[in-house]
Amino acid sequence: MKQTLLAGVLAVAGLSAAVPAAAQFQKPEDAVKYRQSAFTVMGTHFGRLGAMANGRVPFDASVAQANADIVFTMSRLPWPAFGEGTNVGNTKAKPEIWSENDKFRAAAQKLQEEAGKLQVAARSGNLDQIKAAFGATAQSCKACHDNYRKE
Amino acid sequence: MKQTLLAGVLAVAGLSAAVPAAAQFQKPEDAVKYRQSAFTVMGTHFGRLGAMANGRVPFDASVAQANADIVFTMSRLPWPAFGEGTNVGNTKAKPEIWSENDKFRAAAQKLQEEAGKLQVAARSGNLDQIKAAFGATAQSCKACHDNYRKE
Repeated sequence: MKQTLLAGVLAVAGLSAAVPAAAQFQKPEDAVKYRQSAFTVMGTHFGRLGAMANGRVPFDASVAQANADIVFTMSRLPWPAFGEGTNVGNTKAKPEIWSENDKFRAAAQKLQEEAGKLQVAARSGNLDQIKAAFGATAQSCKACHDNYRKE
Repeated sequence: MKQTLLAGVLAVAGLSAAVPAAAQFQKPEDAVKYRQSAFTVMGTHFGRLGAMANGRVPFDASVAQANADIVFTMSRLPWPAFGEGTNVGNTKAKPEIWSENDKFRAAAQKLQEEAGKLQVAARSGNLDQIKAAFGATAQSCKACHDNYRKE
């Protein structure tokens, strides 16, 4: 358990370090599909955590942990797929993603940090900690959506 | 490292144990979108491993490991989203998924086992082991596609 927690904390510290920087998408449309897919999976599991955090479904620590693990893994994935030239096709991405890319990257990093804390909270099994971390993570989602996603 | 490897092996042994069995999708279309998204993410990272296994890109052990970790995580996700009543909308799922569900579930489990072995192989850093495990995993993908996915 201690090892697992440590691994989580180290993962938070390292953030995307182990994720290949090169996007490696054959076509810009592939990058769009990939990042949308990663968000769909992340959002699904984040929603399940939210249902517990908000009391809509009974709290189950192991289910919360499984969902938080997936949220954290997914939180690291979409960003390399926002490369130059990928503002194409059926995307809700705003041009500001590329015109103020440093701010966008910082917002993405903030989400990863919060998702890492959410993972640690879920491993604690303490619902109050999970609620707090869920709220902070949701805020980081919303901040990025407000600034960088079209309605 | 030993702990990490052990965690991987335990994860293989446990398979989907920690993933909530209840699908928890509000609409059947949500389940379709979710499982397609999980496959897109899995396929992207599996393809990157394949590029290394097949010598199209230089072997990088840490990149291989990051990709194999994601493949293993994703290999566990799509299956609860193939619940009854989810053969709807824009799906390539064949009706046999539900008419011979036990066989489909066994094929899904086979993939998770192979993806678990691929994760262990990637952690070894040995390219020959990765190639072998990649081939076995690819076979399990293909077997399921041949039987359960429309062209």
